[in-house]
Amino acid sequence: MKVEAVALEGIPEVAPGDDLVELIVGSAEPIGDDDVVVIAQKIVSKSEGRFCDLTAVEPTDRARELAAETEKDPAIVQLILDESRAVLRAVPGVLIVESQHGFVCANAGIDSSNVSGDRVLLLPIDPDSSARRIRDGFRERLGVAPAVIITDSFGRAWRSGQADVAIGCAGIEPLLDLRGSADSNGRDLAATVTAVADEIAAAADLARAKASGHPVVIVRGRGDLVRDIDGSGAVAGLRERSQDLFR
Amino acid sequence: MKVEAVALEGIPEVAPGDDLVELIVGSAEPIGDDDVVVIAQKIVSKSEGRFCDLTAVEPTDRARELAAETEKDPAIVQLILDESRAVLRAVPGVLIVESQHGFVCANAGIDSSNVSGDRVLLLPIDPDSSARRIRDGFRERLGVAPAVIITDSFGRAWRSGQADVAIGCAGIEPLLDLRGSADSNGRDLAATVTAVADEIAAAADLARAKASGHPVVIVRGRGDLVRDIDGSGAVAGLRERSQDLFR
Repeated sequence: MKVEAVALEGIPEVAPGDDLVELIVGSAEPIGDDDVVVIAQKIVSKSEGRFCDLTAVEPTDRARELAAETEKDPAIVQLILDESRAVLRAVPGVLIVESQHGFVCANAGIDSSNVSGDRVLLLPIDPDSSARRIRDGFRERLGVAPAVIITDSFGRAWRSGQADVAIGCAGIEPLLDLRGSADSNGRDLAATVTAVADEIAAAADLARAKASGHPVVIVRGRGDLVRDIDGSGAVAGLRERSQDLFR
Repeated sequence: MKVEAVALEGIPEVAPGDDLVELIVGSAEPIGDDDVVVIAQKIVSKSEGRFCDLTAVEPTDRARELAAETEKDPAIVQLILDESRAVLRAVPGVLIVESQHGFVCANAGIDSSNVSGDRVLLLPIDPDSSARRIRDGFRERLGVAPAVIITDSFGRAWRSGQADVAIGCAGIEPLLDLRGSADSNGRDLAATVTAVADEIAAAADLARAKASGHPVVIVRGRGDLVRDIDGSGAVAGLRERSQDLFR
């Protein structure tokens, strides 16, 4: 078995209103029904105009308190709070929240790198719906329906560094449930639910040169995971709050 | 840029004392200095004879208490405690520990699938040193020094399902630190430390059919990450306890 991840060359800087499917189709790489198109959150957010001007933000008292605790800009903290359901941890330099989508991540995924001036970039409002819309675009333009995964780089508990994970999916389920299938001794593979969308996100990140712009990667070789229906989205890969022992 | 992960066919069942390098070299796939050889923990543990017979284990009172709390076999719980530095969470069905190596994972990585009878399989005593030994084997036998990563499937906080991560490394650092390098607007990529060894582990897992035995995967296309020196090992990718907000 073989899996490959190919970064698309020549994707230009993305501006609000840009049609990502057009930009992707314009690259030289062919795209088929068995492929997974992996797209960095940043260009999805940019195409959706999810910029926010920090100078227009009026921080509340709560934001100012948290900003002092975390040694962050009160305006950014206000935006993080607006984008979050809950604050999980706040210490100097670190603010971990549950985003409105349900993702546990630093700063609600708000990004100030690769954005100029006083602007920051928020996550898409509904990355699963963004993924479905992009998949529809491939259907319309090319007559093919690859799976689409939107990714972001998140830190992890216990392990240093960031790894890319799926924050939006269409045409692929985030989890592959192998429970009940037998191993080579006929025992149940009791605990095996594999986070395939996150593994694909990680594989795609390896094909991407971070500082030089490869926001789109095609992953090939796992057409078995691509489905006709768009499916339940990346949020279905989140651990339910009541099942989560680490909050 | 392109990255590919190719699962080796024809790796036989591994027994204690087997020389993994011989088994890997015997497969049809060529291996070079720029490759990363990704090996599932299970066959490393088997080759190192890390089997344990549950009927020979005498559970302590502490193990019996925890077994009642977690609804697990007291003998397995005793083994988990023996393999652990600390218990992080214990609820029915779940026992999360910090292993003797420092990995936060369920059941100290002890595996009862794909092992027959009353035997279970423990993690290698020192997976970084296992990786270095295997790398030495490639040097001796083929005159090449690919990076070697030993992987296991771990659950995650906040996100459902398991993803493969690096528990042993040689010839590759677990983290790629891009801090200080500029993005395309000349800003610092402030927070970007990428967990490349874990991303390679995840990519390799995608090329592997879990129930049918593909314990070795060659990852190609990131020769830039392969170093002459064996380096600091997978343990260098663990978050320091004092820096970890989620215990």
